[in-house]
Amino acid sequence: MVLVSGLGLQHGDADVADCSCSRLNLTGWWLCPGHRFGGIVLFSLALREKPSPIPAELKGKAKTGFISWSRLHTLTMASEKPILYGYFRSSCSWRVRIALALKGISYDLVPVSLLNDGGQQFSAEFKALNPMQQVPVLKIDGITLSQSLAIIQYLEDTHPNPRLLPQDPKKRAQVRMIADHIASGIQPLQNLKVLKQMGEKKMEWAQTCIASGFQALEQILQHTAGRYCVGDEVSMADLCLVPQVSNAERFKVEMGPYPTIIRINKALLDLEAFKVSHPSRQPDTPAELRA
Amino acid sequence: MVLVSGLGLQHGDADVADCSCSRLNLTGWWLCPGHRFGGIVLFSLALREKPSPIPAELKGKAKTGFISWSRLHTLTMASEKPILYGYFRSSCSWRVRIALALKGISYDLVPVSLLNDGGQQFSAEFKALNPMQQVPVLKIDGITLSQSLAIIQYLEDTHPNPRLLPQDPKKRAQVRMIADHIASGIQPLQNLKVLKQMGEKKMEWAQTCIASGFQALEQILQHTAGRYCVGDEVSMADLCLVPQVSNAERFKVEMGPYPTIIRINKALLDLEAFKVSHPSRQPDTPAELRA
Repeated sequence: MVLVSGLGLQHGDADVADCSCSRLNLTGWWLCPGHRFGGIVLFSLALREKPSPIPAELKGKAKTGFISWSRLHTLTMASEKPILYGYFRSSCSWRVRIALALKGISYDLVPVSLLNDGGQQFSAEFKALNPMQQVPVLKIDGITLSQSLAIIQYLEDTHPNPRLLPQDPKKRAQVRMIADHIASGIQPLQNLKVLKQMGEKKMEWAQTCIASGFQALEQILQHTAGRYCVGDEVSMADLCLVPQVSNAERFKVEMGPYPTIIRINKALLDLEAFKVSHPSRQPDTPAELRA
Repeated sequence: MVLVSGLGLQHGDADVADCSCSRLNLTGWWLCPGHRFGGIVLFSLALREKPSPIPAELKGKAKTGFISWSRLHTLTMASEKPILYGYFRSSCSWRVRIALALKGISYDLVPVSLLNDGGQQFSAEFKALNPMQQVPVLKIDGITLSQSLAIIQYLEDTHPNPRLLPQDPKKRAQVRMIADHIASGIQPLQNLKVLKQMGEKKMEWAQTCIASGFQALEQILQHTAGRYCVGDEVSMADLCLVPQVSNAERFKVEMGPYPTIIRINKALLDLEAFKVSHPSRQPDTPAELRA
């Protein structure tokens, strides 16, 4: 019997009796709220092709769903790998995915839907990982980190190649300035929490915040940009830029006034690390949004 | 004649004829919108005890005010020093002031009032310094930086003693996580721009944002804190904590549920660098708010 305690639900709820034995290449799983989020608990025989029925004492308490064999294998066989808790469309999760891809760090993904179940980030299990109830979270080297830029800089400290912060302190400061400009100056103002508060004015508010942030950024880039945000090397600033442009597109921000932002964004999206980390290509991307 | 082009206005507008010759220990100054903000332009004899009258061609175009001799001396004699453009009550400016004080870096302050003149950060002169029209800005080593954490990390890179980021990468990541938790997760949600949008609900909104951020922070600190936010050494996280607690007090947030935050804040406020950088002790602190 395999018991996966986590939020990896990908195909919606289903009846346990169905999923536990009848589907080829799928095994049943159930999420037991009593277990610490993200852990994987194996009872009896792990990874049997046809897992045992759900234990009687969990019936009614557990949510049920499907998980593919390959994903289950990844989750169970690679517990030493970093685990990223993220959401396909979260711009902050995307920043971290790009860093992991650029640095060639393989990781396990546990999707945390910000929409399903009233927001899985609000579950007690996820709150134990990040009391702020936001994605991304990275479990790595025995610590649990939240805040995308702190995560990226930890990856930079521990996996310095390729560099995401230039060696020259002045250029490094410019990279951090642009990254913070987006991560503190734009994104928080148009995140879910604030938008909910804005009610009907939500779209207009998001557009205003992004547009004023981009107006400033366009000017800053006149002093710093080469092929990318700062010079000709991909940096942490670029990891923030691309997801924010994607947010701008979702909120239908008029991009005409920002030719430099558009140019850099386009150059970055050509890079493999930006492609594989794209929201349209994640395990939790809904079918209708897949590339 | 001395012409100071900047936003150092400290005592309100005044008639040039008054201030240019009659007051002991004061010299007249005028702000000419045509000059790049923050620069100091000297015509004729600099620092004459009784500066010449305002040139006819600037009359009507220029704002006038007072500046003390000692301040003018600081501004004119020490152009190699870093210049901090800040506001006494801005929590982000305060973060940078603490860093400068801890590292023993002397600097010149140019106050930018977020309230006077409809917000001096919106002037064309200031926008040329920071297109995002926010304080703080630091001019240092020939570059102009905005974003408080980018500034602090530049100071850390160039003036490594005393350290504000621990040597151990895991502890460093925790410091950055807490700093970003405040700088991206709390402060931007209760800044002037968002509060204006909230209208009558402004106080309640600020309280909600700070309280939910502090609830999370209180839990994070259970894993990281010693005497200060991360272990027993003052770090960048502490530079963010104290100004945010001050904001919480301004917005009358009930602090009872956050004993760890209160304890650390108190310990930090005992340190000289936190005292000298306090909003109640800045050159632009209004008399009624002075310590």
